[in-house]
Amino acid sequence: MTAVNGSSVRARVVLQQCLSARLQTKPTEQDSEAQWAEINRGMVIYICFFKGATEDMIPKMVNTLLNMKLCETDSGYTSVLELPGSVLVVPQATLGGKPKGRGMQYHGNIGKEDGQKLYASFVSQCENELSLTVKGSEGAIAVRHGTYGNRQVLKLDTNGPYTHLMEF
Amino acid sequence: MTAVNGSSVRARVVLQQCLSARLQTKPTEQDSEAQWAEINRGMVIYICFFKGATEDMIPKMVNTLLNMKLCETDSGYTSVLELPGSVLVVPQATLGGKPKGRGMQYHGNIGKEDGQKLYASFVSQCENELSLTVKGSEGAIAVRHGTYGNRQVLKLDTNGPYTHLMEF
Repeated sequence: MTAVNGSSVRARVVLQQCLSARLQTKPTEQDSEAQWAEINRGMVIYICFFKGATEDMIPKMVNTLLNMKLCETDSGYTSVLELPGSVLVVPQATLGGKPKGRGMQYHGNIGKEDGQKLYASFVSQCENELSLTVKGSEGAIAVRHGTYGNRQVLKLDTNGPYTHLMEF
Repeated sequence: MTAVNGSSVRARVVLQQCLSARLQTKPTEQDSEAQWAEINRGMVIYICFFKGATEDMIPKMVNTLLNMKLCETDSGYTSVLELPGSVLVVPQATLGGKPKGRGMQYHGNIGKEDGQKLYASFVSQCENELSLTVKGSEGAIAVRHGTYGNRQVLKLDTNGPYTHLMEF
């Protein structure tokens, strides 16, 4: 049993299934168009690290999340690795919010530098897991991700988001 | 301090801000097109009730959720009521999932009949709050919602979902 915003929770993840999803990775600028990270069918992982999160928890997190049977098929549910589907990782510090009055506070969130490292490690280990499982012939299947600390302009299309919460 | 999936949590809510969102309320059938509930700018509320949830907790939930300052403006954050924005309520029993092995179990979720009543009450109290606050001239602002127990085919367009978790 873990506690919401308590010291025992080191990472919070919200999972949604998608038919497609796109995340802006670079906004429109005077001389360039916006850039997007895009996936087709697969899973969106919104992730937030709390103070106390460490590198050694990432392999188990990645393994658990990519192997959870949350993707619908004609014959039941399977994992995003087995589907096989793509993964869009969205850094989402707001998930660490704790209400105070009518506002949210984020005092439990990890510092920016440590968070950035854990996020990079999480993305890279997702990429490794997916590339080990998914064969080269399935080139459209990939891990895409947002930029830590930036605004996450997201467009999502689902056949039912089937939203789950997981804490580590 | 509340516990994830523990007996003290009676409702779990995930909130996302949107530029627009649409939810299928009736699938395509042989003789009719799919029907959608649609909002423009506002907030998507994914909601799940656990065993032990009761009618008397709904007014406080609605009041808290609609008054939390989670909507971005040029000068900071304001509530969906003050924005004013619309609300899309999505019943999402999967939020009650507790991992067991590679699958999810939903033993903590409230029964269907009680859940349906609480959901209807939640939606209706959101409608009341919004109609009290938002003037008639702002007719595009409304509460829309999915059908309890059905598949929630959702399309979401955000300028940053700003995802928050709240438990009651």
